[in-house]
Amino acid sequence: MIPRYSRPEMVSIWSPETKYRIWFEIEAHACTALAKLGVIPEEAAKNIWEKGSNAKFDVSRIEEIEAVTKHDVIAFLTHLAEFIGPDSRFVHQGMTSSDVLDTTLNVQLMRASDILIKDMDELLKALKKRAFEYKDTVMIGRSHGIHAEPTTFGLKLAFAYAEFSRCRARLVAAKEEISTCAISGAVGTFANIDPRVEAYVADQLGMRPEPISTQIIPRDRHAMFFATLGVIASSIERLAIEIRHLQRTEVLEAEEYFSPGQKGSSAMPHKRNPVLSENLTGLSRMIRSFAFPAMEDVALWHERDISHSSVERFIGPDATITLDFALARLTSVIDKLLVYPENMMKNLNKFHGLVNSQRVLLALTQKGVSREDAYRIVQRNAMQVWEHGKDFLQELLADPDVRRVLSEEEIREKFDLGYHTKHVDTIFHRVFG
Amino acid sequence: MIPRYSRPEMVSIWSPETKYRIWFEIEAHACTALAKLGVIPEEAAKNIWEKGSNAKFDVSRIEEIEAVTKHDVIAFLTHLAEFIGPDSRFVHQGMTSSDVLDTTLNVQLMRASDILIKDMDELLKALKKRAFEYKDTVMIGRSHGIHAEPTTFGLKLAFAYAEFSRCRARLVAAKEEISTCAISGAVGTFANIDPRVEAYVADQLGMRPEPISTQIIPRDRHAMFFATLGVIASSIERLAIEIRHLQRTEVLEAEEYFSPGQKGSSAMPHKRNPVLSENLTGLSRMIRSFAFPAMEDVALWHERDISHSSVERFIGPDATITLDFALARLTSVIDKLLVYPENMMKNLNKFHGLVNSQRVLLALTQKGVSREDAYRIVQRNAMQVWEHGKDFLQELLADPDVRRVLSEEEIREKFDLGYHTKHVDTIFHRVFG
Amino acid sequence: MIPRYSRPEMVSIWSPETKYRIWFEIEAHACTALAKLGVIPEEAAKNIWEKGSNAKFDVSRIEEIEAVTKHDVIAFLTHLAEFIGPDSRFVHQGMTSSDVLDTTLNVQLMRASDILIKDMDELLKALKKRAFEYKDTVMIGRSHGIHAEPTTFGLKLAFAYAEFSRCRARLVAAKEEISTCAISGAVGTFANIDPRVEAYVADQLGMRPEPISTQIIPRDRHAMFFATLGVIASSIERLAIEIRHLQRTEVLEAEEYFSPGQKGSSAMPHKRNPVLSENLTGLSRMIRSFAFPAMEDVALWHERDISHSSVERFIGPDATITLDFALARLTSVIDKLLVYPENMMKNLNKFHGLVNSQRVLLALTQKGVSREDAYRIVQRNAMQVWEHGKDFLQELLADPDVRRVLSEEEIREKFDLGYHTKHVDTIFHRVFG
Amino acid sequence: MIPRYSRPEMVSIWSPETKYRIWFEIEAHACTALAKLGVIPEEAAKNIWEKGSNAKFDVSRIEEIEAVTKHDVIAFLTHLAEFIGPDSRFVHQGMTSSDVLDTTLNVQLMRASDILIKDMDELLKALKKRAFEYKDTVMIGRSHGIHAEPTTFGLKLAFAYAEFSRCRARLVAAKEEISTCAISGAVGTFANIDPRVEAYVADQLGMRPEPISTQIIPRDRHAMFFATLGVIASSIERLAIEIRHLQRTEVLEAEEYFSPGQKGSSAMPHKRNPVLSENLTGLSRMIRSFAFPAMEDVALWHERDISHSSVERFIGPDATITLDFALARLTSVIDKLLVYPENMMKNLNKFHGLVNSQRVLLALTQKGVSREDAYRIVQRNAMQVWEHGKDFLQELLADPDVRRVLSEEEIREKFDLGYHTKHVDTIFHRVFG
Repeated sequence: MIPRYSRPEMVSIWSPETKYRIWFEIEAHACTALAKLGVIPEEAAKNIWEKGSNAKFDVSRIEEIEAVTKHDVIAFLTHLAEFIGPDSRFVHQGMTSSDVLDTTLNVQLMRASDILIKDMDELLKALKKRAFEYKDTVMIGRSHGIHAEPTTFGLKLAFAYAEFSRCRARLVAAKEEISTCAISGAVGTFANIDPRVEAYVADQLGMRPEPISTQIIPRDRHAMFFATLGVIASSIERLAIEIRHLQRTEVLEAEEYFSPGQKGSSAMPHKRNPVLSENLTGLSRMIRSFAFPAMEDVALWHERDISHSSVERFIGPDATITLDFALARLTSVIDKLLVYPENMMKNLNKFHGLVNSQRVLLALTQKGVSREDAYRIVQRNAMQVWEHGKDFLQELLADPDVRRVLSEEEIREKFDLGYHTKHVDTIFHRVFG
Repeated sequence: MIPRYSRPEMVSIWSPETKYRIWFEIEAHACTALAKLGVIPEEAAKNIWEKGSNAKFDVSRIEEIEAVTKHDVIAFLTHLAEFIGPDSRFVHQGMTSSDVLDTTLNVQLMRASDILIKDMDELLKALKKRAFEYKDTVMIGRSHGIHAEPTTFGLKLAFAYAEFSRCRARLVAAKEEISTCAISGAVGTFANIDPRVEAYVADQLGMRPEPISTQIIPRDRHAMFFATLGVIASSIERLAIEIRHLQRTEVLEAEEYFSPGQKGSSAMPHKRNPVLSENLTGLSRMIRSFAFPAMEDVALWHERDISHSSVERFIGPDATITLDFALARLTSVIDKLLVYPENMMKNLNKFHGLVNSQRVLLALTQKGVSREDAYRIVQRNAMQVWEHGKDFLQELLADPDVRRVLSEEEIREKFDLGYHTKHVDTIFHRVFG
Repeated sequence: MIPRYSRPEMVSIWSPETKYRIWFEIEAHACTALAKLGVIPEEAAKNIWEKGSNAKFDVSRIEEIEAVTKHDVIAFLTHLAEFIGPDSRFVHQGMTSSDVLDTTLNVQLMRASDILIKDMDELLKALKKRAFEYKDTVMIGRSHGIHAEPTTFGLKLAFAYAEFSRCRARLVAAKEEISTCAISGAVGTFANIDPRVEAYVADQLGMRPEPISTQIIPRDRHAMFFATLGVIASSIERLAIEIRHLQRTEVLEAEEYFSPGQKGSSAMPHKRNPVLSENLTGLSRMIRSFAFPAMEDVALWHERDISHSSVERFIGPDATITLDFALARLTSVIDKLLVYPENMMKNLNKFHGLVNSQRVLLALTQKGVSREDAYRIVQRNAMQVWEHGKDFLQELLADPDVRRVLSEEEIREKFDLGYHTKHVDTIFHRVFG
Repeated sequence: MIPRYSRPEMVSIWSPETKYRIWFEIEAHACTALAKLGVIPEEAAKNIWEKGSNAKFDVSRIEEIEAVTKHDVIAFLTHLAEFIGPDSRFVHQGMTSSDVLDTTLNVQLMRASDILIKDMDELLKALKKRAFEYKDTVMIGRSHGIHAEPTTFGLKLAFAYAEFSRCRARLVAAKEEISTCAISGAVGTFANIDPRVEAYVADQLGMRPEPISTQIIPRDRHAMFFATLGVIASSIERLAIEIRHLQRTEVLEAEEYFSPGQKGSSAMPHKRNPVLSENLTGLSRMIRSFAFPAMEDVALWHERDISHSSVERFIGPDATITLDFALARLTSVIDKLLVYPENMMKNLNKFHGLVNSQRVLLALTQKGVSREDAYRIVQRNAMQVWEHGKDFLQELLADPDVRRVLSEEEIREKFDLGYHTKHVDTIFHRVFG
C-alpha cells in the first residue's frame, strides 16, 4: 500500500482491526449456529457475542502472542479468551483456522468490490455527463495516430462509457466469484462440524456456502477476481493514454485540469503535463501485474498449502486499494477535463479538406467510375493539396474528370461534416439506452 | 502452434481457408443487407453469394497479391473479384477492413469457445464418473504436503469437478464477451454504411452488434477472453500437480495409465513417470502467459492502432489450440487414471493412528479437560507413537488420564474412519446436484 | 512460429533436421571421447562418425518410431542404428536422454544468440549512421508529451544506440549463461559416464561443462536468457513508439518509408500509417511475455521434472525467431526512415519562442532577481504569447523589468538554439567513442 | 511493503529520511562542482554543505509544502532553504528534478544491491556448510518425482550453491546496470549545466555518469535490474519447493526446524508443516511479478513521461525488501534444516534394489547381450520384485540368463552405492573450487 495512492475507506477494510472484527463475527456466528444445534450451550453463545462485541481488540497484544505461538488464529483466540472468560472454550469448536481466514478474505474482497462498484458508478456518471456535453463536438478520428475520418468527442466518451459498463458487469461477476464462505474443517469433510453451521454463517454474512472446499476456498475464484481487476486496469490505461495523446502539445484538444497553485512550469504556460493520466498509466501496470501471482496461487498442493497467503497479503490490499484510487482519480480527471473544441476543428482542417477524400472516392465509384480510375483522380487532386497546400474542394470543383460525373452540389455535399455525425444519436441510444 | 500439442478440429478454425471463408460470408451477408436497403442491386447480392459460395479461394494467390498491395483484405477482394466479375464492385461498399477482420476474429473465437466448452463437458463427465467410482475410497487428506485428516479420493475428484464447472461457466461468459460483430466503418460512425447492415450481419452470424466500435471491436473483450483462458489453465495445472504428487514413488496412490509399448523405463517398473501431467503443467504456463499481451492490447491509440494484430496472430491460435489439447489430454488422464486404494490405506495408516489425535484432543476438551491439559495428554501419547513406533490407540487405552474421562468405546470411536466420511453424500449432492 | 514474422536462417535452427544433426554430433563426439578413454573401440567411434555424417535422417521415420516408443531420443537412436549397424550399440553408452536434449537446446540457443548479436550489430550500424546524419538537426524535446527544450534528432538516435549497445552486451551475457554442456547421466552423478566425456564434448561444441547438473541443465540459465530477450523487446517497443509518435499527423517529424505499391490509402497522402512500428510494438509484447513461463520453469521438482519441455517447444523458437524478425524490421525502419527537419523546426517554433522561458528565468535569477520575482516576470510575458499569440522575444525586449537587468544582446542570446546543442559532440563522443 | 516480510536495514533505504538525505547530497555535491567551475561562489557551496549536513529534515513539513506545490523536489528545496538561507538560490542551478530523482533511485538500488549481495553471501555460506556436512549422505535421486538413481544430499545442496553463485553474479551485474548518475538537465542536453558537474557528482557517489540521458536515466536499466530479481526469486522458489518435497509425510528426508513454542499441531508430531518454504514460494511469485511492470516502464514517451514513477514507488521497495527477507529466511531454513539420513536410506531401499536395474542392464549389454534381450531379462526379474516383493539382487543371482554372462561378484558390484558417489569429490571441486 502506497499512502499517496490510497483512500481511507478502502484502506480500512484491510486494517488489522477490521480483520479481527470479522474473525470475531465469524466465530460468534458459528457459536450461534452450534448453540442452535445443541452442540454448545445457548448461554455461552450469547455471552460470546456480548463480550466480544464490546471488546476492543488490542492488535499489538495479539502480535505479541503470535510471536510465541507463530499462529495468528490461535493468538487471536487467546486474546479473545481474555475478554470472554471460560466460555471461550466453546469458540472455534470443530473449526480450523482456514475456515476463519478464508471466509474473512472473501468478506474483505466483497466489501472492496462494493467500493469498486460504487467507484465505477461515479466514473460512469462523469463519462455520461461529459459525453452528452460533447455529443456533437466534431473532431478528427485517428487510426494509427493518423487522421482518418471525423468523429465527435462525445463518441469517444461514449465508447469509454460502454467499456467501463462492461468493466462494471465484470466486477459484479468477480464479486460473485468470491462471495463464498467455508466452514468445513481440516480437509473440508465437515468431520468435526455440521455443514449447517457453514450454511448459517454464510447466510448471516450475505455469502453462499462454498459447495466443496478442502480446508481452503479454492483459489481459482481469487485468480478470476484479480484477473478481472487486471482487465479493468487495462481499460483505465486505455483512457489515460487517450487523454495523454489529446494533451500533446501539437494536438491540445483536451487537457487535465491544472490547479492555480500547481508549480513546476508556472512560467511555461504550454508546459501543462498530463501527470494524472501518466500516473494512471503506471498504476494500471501494477494492478495488471497482480493477476499473475494470483493465477500461480491456484495450483496449491493437495488439500492446501499456504503459499498463496503471502501473495494475498500483498495483492489483496494493493490491488483493491490501488484500483479504488485509480478509478477515483480517473473520475476526477474526466469530470474536470478541459476540452478545446476550436483546437479540434483546427486539427480537423489541417489538410484543407483531404479528410473527405474517401467520400469523394466512393461517390465516383458509385457513379460508375472504376475503382482504379477513381483512385487515380482523387489521388491527383490530393497531391495538389498535400504538396502545394491547395484546397481540396476547390481542386475537385476544377477537375473536369470529377465534374463529368459529380455536380458542384454533389461535391460540396461530400464536405459536409453532418455526414459523419448523422448516426451519433443512434449510437448514443445504443450505449446509454 | 506446436503440432504435437494440437488437434485438427481446433487447428482448422485458424487455417487461412477458414478465415477467407468467414471473410466471404461477412461480405456476402453485408451485400444482402445492402440490397435489402436498396443500396446495391438485389441481383448483384445474389450473384455474389452464388459465385462466392462455389469459389475455391486460392491462398497462395491471395498471398501473392498481398505481397504487392501489403494489405490483406484488398488482396482478398481482388481475388474474390476474379470469381465474381463486375458485381464485385458492390462488395465491401462503405465498409472498412477492420469490419471484416474483427468480426472474423470473433467468429473464430466463438467457434473455438464452442470446442472448448465441449472439451470441458468431456472433462466434467470423466471427473464425475471417476468421482462416483471412488466416492467412498478413504485416503489421507494433506495440508502443506503433510498428513492431516482422512478424506476420500472421490472428494478430490468432486472438488476438481466443481472447479471445472466454474471454469465452464467462465468460458461461457468469455464467449459472450467476444460474440459481437462490428460493421461501422472507418472510425465507427457508420458514416458510409447504415447501422442496419451491421444488425443484419450480426444476426446471421449469431452475434450481437457491438454497441459502439471505433473501426475496431474494443480489446477489453479479448483481454477478458484470454484472461479467462489463463485462469482455466491454472486450474488444469492444479489437477495436473495433484496427479504428479499422487504418483510420487513414496506416495503412489494413483498413476497415469502406461501403455504397453511405452519405453524408457521398461526395466524399471517403478519408473513410470507422470509425463502427461508434467506436460500439462508446462502447457498451463504457456496458456496463462498469453493473458498478459492480451491485456496490453487494450490500450490502443485513439480510434485504433494495429499493435494488437501481431499479438493476436500468436495467441488467437496458440491459446485456443493449446487449451483444447490440454483439456483433452487431462480428460484422458482422468479417464484412464490407475487408482490404488490399498496404497491409500497404507499411507493413511503410516503413523499408527496418529491421524486421529485431533479427534481425541477434541473429545477430551468436550469432557471438560482444559485445552492445555488435553494438549499435554495427547502429545505425551503421540510421542510414544512417533518416537517408538507404538500404536496410538493402545497407548490411549492404557493412559489413566485419558481413561478417567473417556471409555474404551469412546476412544475406539475416535478411530472410526466413518466419522470423516459421514458428509460425503451431502457434499456430492452439493456438487453434482 | 508465425511465418510472416520469421526469417529463414533463424527458423532453420529450430528445424527437426538441425535438431537431429546436433543430436548426432553430441552422440558422436561422446563416442570419440569414450574411445579415447578405452570404453568403446576406436573403430566403432570412427564408423559412427562416418556413417552418421553421411546419413540423411528421415524425420517422418523418426516420428513413426516415436509414436510407438513415446520417447524421442530412443526413436532417434533406433533410426540412427539403421545407418550405423551393429556399432550402434556403442552409441549413447552411459548417457541419458537429457544429456542430448539439454545440450542440444543450448547449442540452438547459442546459434540463435549469434544471429541476434549480428542483428543487433546491423541495428547499431543503422542507428549510428542516421544519428550522425541528424546530429545537429534541432527539434523540440518533449517530456510528458509536452514541449520542453530543444534537442537534436541525432541525440534521439544516439540515445537508442546507447540503449541497444546495452542490449547487445546483455545478449552476449545471456549467450554466456546458456553456453554449457551436460553429459552427466541420470541424476548428474556421472555414475555411468566419465566426466571427461562431458569435458571433451563441451570443448568440441565451444561450450563450458555445466559445473553441476541433475540430469538437466539448470533452468535458471534459461530464465535469465529469456528475461534478457524480454528486456530487449521492451527497448524495441520504446523506439517503435517513438517513431509512431513522430509520425502522428500533427507532429509528422519522421515517417516510415512508404513503398510506391503500398495501397490502402493511396488517395489519402496524409494516411501513411506507421504499421511497421505498430507491428513491432505488438511483437515486443509477445517476446516479453515469454519471460514469464521461462521463469516458472526454474522450479522443477528434485533432480528434474519435464514440465519445462513443452514451454521450451514454444518459446525456444518463438522468442528467438520473433526477436530476430523484430530487430531486422526495426533496422530497416531506421535505415529508411524519412526525416522532416522543416517540420521539426516548425513544431519547435509553435509557441513563438516560449520554449526559451526557462533560460530567461535562469538569467534573471543569475542577475540577482529573486526566484519568485523572476517567475512572475517571465510568466507575465509568457501569458501574452500564450493568450494573444504575441512573440516572446519582442515582449521581453519591451518589458522594463527585464531590461533593467538584461541587455538586448543578453535577451537575444537566450533565443540562440546553439545554446542547447553545444554539448552534442561531447555526448556523441561518450556514446560512439 | 508488508511489515512481516521486511527487515529494518533494507526498509531504511526506502524511508523518506534516507531519500531526502540523498537528495541533499546530490544537490550539495553539484554545488561543490559548480563552485569549482566558478559558476557559484565557493563560500555558498561550503555553507550549503555545512547547514544542510546539520539540518534535520522534517518529512511532514515537506509533505505540507508538496500538498500546495504538487511538486516534490520544489517542496524539498523550499524546506532546504529554510535551513540554508539566501545561499539556497545557488542550489539546483541548471538542474532538473529528474536529475535528483533518478540519481537517487539508483543510489537506493545500489545500496539495496549491496545488502542483497551480502544476503546472498550468507546463503552461500550456509549452503556450503551443509553441503560438505552431507557430501556423502546417499539418498535417492528423483526425476519426475519418481525414484531414479542414487545421489547425495550434499550434491543437492552443491547444486543450489552453484545456482545461487550464478544468482550472485547476476546481482552484481544488475547492480552495475543501475550504478549511473544523470545530471543533464531538462532533456539531457546539458544546456544549463556543465557535463563536468555530472562527472563530479557521479564520482562522489561511486557511480558512472549515464552516457546519454533524456531528463531521465533510461529504464531498460531498471527493467534488467528487476528482471534479474525475478530470476533470483525463481531460484529461491526451486529450493523452497525441494524442501517442501523432502518434508512430505511419505518422504520425510528433511524438515524445517520447528521451534519448541510453535503451536498448531503440538499434538500431532507428524504435523510439522514446511511453512517457511511455502511462504518463500509465495514471496517468489510476488518478486517475479514485479519484473513485468518494470519491463513495461521502458517504453516511455519521447524524452520522458512519468508513468514509471508510480510503478517504482511500489516495486523499488517491495522487490528489494521482499527479496532481502526471502534470502535471509531461506538462509535460516538451510542453516537449521533437520536432515534424516536414515529416512533417506529407507526410501532408497524401498524397492529392494530395483534402483540398480539400469546398471544391470548396462552390464548385460556390455557383455554382448543385445539391448532387446537385456531389457527382457532385467524386466523379468524386476517384475518379481515389483509384484511379489522379492529382492532384486537375489532374483538376479538366481537367473541363469544373467549368470551366463555375469559372475556373482559382478552382480553384487552393481548394488554398490559407491558406484554412484565416486565422482562427488570431482563435482564438489568444480562447484566449490
